[in-house]
Amino acid sequence: VNVKQNLQPTSQGPGVVLSAIIRGEASTKSAIEAATGLSRPTVAERVRVLSEAGLVKETNRRMSSGGRPATVLEFDPRSSVSLCVDIGEERTRVALADLRAEIIVETVLEIEVAEGPRAVLSAIASAGRALLAGDEVAGSPLGGVGVGLPAPVDFGTGRTIGWSVMAGWDGYGVKEHLAREFGVPVYVDNDVNLLLLAEQRLDWPDEQHLLFVKIGTGIGSGLVVDGRINRGSLGAAGDIGHAHVSGYGDPLCRCGNRGCLEALAGGWALARDLRERDPGYAEVSSARDVVATIRRGDPDAVALIRGAGRILGEAVAFATSLLNPAVIVVGGELAKAGDQLMAGVRELVYQRSLPLATKNLIISPSRLGEEAGVLGAAFLVADELLDPDRIDRLLGTSPVSGRRKETAPVAG
Amino acid sequence: VNVKQNLQPTSQGPGVVLSAIIRGEASTKSAIEAATGLSRPTVAERVRVLSEAGLVKETNRRMSSGGRPATVLEFDPRSSVSLCVDIGEERTRVALADLRAEIIVETVLEIEVAEGPRAVLSAIASAGRALLAGDEVAGSPLGGVGVGLPAPVDFGTGRTIGWSVMAGWDGYGVKEHLAREFGVPVYVDNDVNLLLLAEQRLDWPDEQHLLFVKIGTGIGSGLVVDGRINRGSLGAAGDIGHAHVSGYGDPLCRCGNRGCLEALAGGWALARDLRERDPGYAEVSSARDVVATIRRGDPDAVALIRGAGRILGEAVAFATSLLNPAVIVVGGELAKAGDQLMAGVRELVYQRSLPLATKNLIISPSRLGEEAGVLGAAFLVADELLDPDRIDRLLGTSPVSGRRKETAPVAG
Repeated sequence: VNVKQNLQPTSQGPGVVLSAIIRGEASTKSAIEAATGLSRPTVAERVRVLSEAGLVKETNRRMSSGGRPATVLEFDPRSSVSLCVDIGEERTRVALADLRAEIIVETVLEIEVAEGPRAVLSAIASAGRALLAGDEVAGSPLGGVGVGLPAPVDFGTGRTIGWSVMAGWDGYGVKEHLAREFGVPVYVDNDVNLLLLAEQRLDWPDEQHLLFVKIGTGIGSGLVVDGRINRGSLGAAGDIGHAHVSGYGDPLCRCGNRGCLEALAGGWALARDLRERDPGYAEVSSARDVVATIRRGDPDAVALIRGAGRILGEAVAFATSLLNPAVIVVGGELAKAGDQLMAGVRELVYQRSLPLATKNLIISPSRLGEEAGVLGAAFLVADELLDPDRIDRLLGTSPVSGRRKETAPVAG
Repeated sequence: VNVKQNLQPTSQGPGVVLSAIIRGEASTKSAIEAATGLSRPTVAERVRVLSEAGLVKETNRRMSSGGRPATVLEFDPRSSVSLCVDIGEERTRVALADLRAEIIVETVLEIEVAEGPRAVLSAIASAGRALLAGDEVAGSPLGGVGVGLPAPVDFGTGRTIGWSVMAGWDGYGVKEHLAREFGVPVYVDNDVNLLLLAEQRLDWPDEQHLLFVKIGTGIGSGLVVDGRINRGSLGAAGDIGHAHVSGYGDPLCRCGNRGCLEALAGGWALARDLRERDPGYAEVSSARDVVATIRRGDPDAVALIRGAGRILGEAVAFATSLLNPAVIVVGGELAKAGDQLMAGVRELVYQRSLPLATKNLIISPSRLGEEAGVLGAAFLVADELLDPDRIDRLLGTSPVSGRRKETAPVAG
C-alpha cells in the first residue's frame, strides 16, 4: 500500500516563517510562533536570518494584543527583482517585476523567434541589462529570470521539445545561456502555461480546475488540475493545436500533419481562408490582420471567426468532458476579436456536453492584456525563489531548540 | 503571491510513524527516529499507541546495527478488513480485503443497478455480513467500506451526479446507507476511478501521468495527473462516453444526445450495429455477447470492433494531446476481445498525435481481471484509513517532548 505522500518532515526553517508572513497569516514573532508551532528562540533566529537576507523587514508599526506591543514584520517584495521574458513568434516582451509579480518596467523587442536562439537571447540580455540599470529598480538585485517560449518545454531542462514554431531552437540551452548572462536561477516554461499562471493568480485564485485556451496564430492550452499546473509526462500537456478534429475536411497543417485544430481555426488558417476567398484579402497574413478584418465588421471574416469558434468549441467540449473544469478561459489575439468567437465556443460546449459537466461551468474571455505573459513569468520566478524548501537550503535550517540535522546552505 | 501550499505543519503524531513502517523506511524505533526526526521518547509513545490500536506489532525478529539488537516492528495489514464493493450495471462484486489490498474472500451478486439503491445495498449488506462471519477473516474487525458506482460520483458526499445508467439512484445516500449498516467510514467513488487506482498501484506504481479507458457496455475513463487521481471540479472528470465524436454520423445515444463516443463504439452500440446488420445477431445485446461473437471470429464483428478501436482512438488521441500521459491503459469487457480493438486505438493515436506526445507513450491493455474494481476499492479504503492525518486524529498527537497542542481523538 502506498500511503499518501505526506511523510516528508516539514521544514522548521526560515521558509515556513517567510511563507506565514507573505500569506498574511502572521506579522509578529508571537503570531509566527502560533502559526508555525515553532519555539520563540527558533522564530527569533529565523526572522533574523530572513532580515539579513533582505526578505523581511521590521516596520515602525507595532501591534498590541494585551502584552508588550510587538514589532510588525513585513515581506519586502523588492528584496530582489525578476527578469520576465515572454518570447513570441513575432516579438518579445521583457520586463522587471517584484516578488509580488508587480511589473516595474518593461520593453518590447521587435525580433522574431526565427532569428534563432543566439540573436534573440542576446537581444533579451541587452534589454534586461538596460532595464536593470534604470532608476525604477532602485538598486534591488536581480533574483531570477523567467522565460516563456512558444513551444512545448521540458520544464526541468528548459529546452524546447517536439514540433513547434521554434524549429531552430531545438535542444538549445536557453536556461544555460541566460544563467551565464545573469548568474541567477533561470526558469523556462511554455508560454501558454505562463498565461495560465497569470490568469489563475489574478482572476481565479480559488479555482482548482481551470482550462486556458490560447487562440492566436496557433492554438495551445494549459491545465490547472487540483490547483496546480499540469505539464504532463514530458511537458507537452495542453498542446491541442495539433490534435485532429474530424468532420471539417483535413487541410494540411504547418506541422506536416492534416486536419489539426490550428489548421482549421488558428489565426494563420483563418488568414489563409480569407486570402483564398477574395483577392481583396491578399495582405491578410497574421492573427492581428484577421482581427483587424473582423473589427471592420467584414461579413466574410465574421462568419469565419464564428465558425472557428465552433471548431474550437468541439475541442473545448471534449476537454470539458475529460477534465470537468470549473472555469474555461479563452485568450490570445483572436479572443480579442469580439463576441463571435466566444459565441461559437459556448454554442458547441453547451450542445456537446452532459449537463453535469457544464452545470457550474464558467466560460470567460481572458481579461488580461499584452502583459499576461511577463506577469506569468513573474509569478513563476517568485514561486520558485520563495519556495520554502529553497529558502531553507539557502538560509539554513540549523535547529535552535529543535532536533533536526543542519543542512549546509546551497548557493542559488 | 501565493507561495506553494506546504505551510501546514507536518504531524509529529503516530501517522508519520505508521507511514514510515508501512513504506518499509524504518522497522526499528531508532530507524524511525532517523526517518522522522522525532525524539526517542516521542517515537516510543507513538509505537505504543499504534500497537494498542493493533496497527503495528512487535515481531520476534531482532535487528542489530552495532549496539543492542532492536525489536523489528511490523505493520499488521489484518488489524482491520475492508468491505470492497464493485457495483456494475448487471452484477455486483463484494469482497473483503486486508489493509495491503489483498483480497481475502469474495462473492458475486447477480443483481442489476436498475433494481434501485435499497434493494442493491441491502443485498450488499447481507453479503458483506456473511463474508465477515466467515472463518477467513479470523476476527479482524471491519475498518471501512469502499464502493465503486457506474456513474459520476461527488467524492465528498458519495452521491451520484448527472446522467448515468444509475437513473433511480440520483442523490441517494449510498454512504449513509452503508454507514448505518456497518458503523464504519464509507468511501464511494466512480467505478472507473477504482479500476484506475488498482491499475496504478499494481502495474504502474512509478508513473505520474496515466490515462485509463474502460470500454464495456458504455465508455468511461480515469486520469492520474502528477501521481494523483484527477476527479475534476464536480467529480465528472473522465466521463468521455458522452463526448461528441464528429465524422461518424450522429446516432442517438442512451443519454438523449447524438454522436456520443459510446453511441459509436460502446458495447451496447456494437450490439445494436450487429443486430441491424443481420437477423442472425438478434440475440446479441450486451458487451459480453459482442465479445463472444468476436471470439468466434465472425468477420462482421471483427470489422466492427476494429472500427470501434479507431473511433475510440480518435478520442484517446485527443486526450493524448491534451494530457501528455506516459501510459494509456485500455480495460473493460471489450478490451478482452483480442488485439483488434487495441490495433484500432494504436493506429489512430499514432496517426493523429505529434511525435512528442507519443515518443515514450505506452498503450497497453489492462492486465487486471474481474477483481480490479474491488481491488481499487481496497486501495481506496486503505489509503483513507491509513492517512497519517486521520491516524493522528484517531490516536492523538499529544506532544511528548514537542510543542504542539493536543488534539482530541475523533471517532472513526
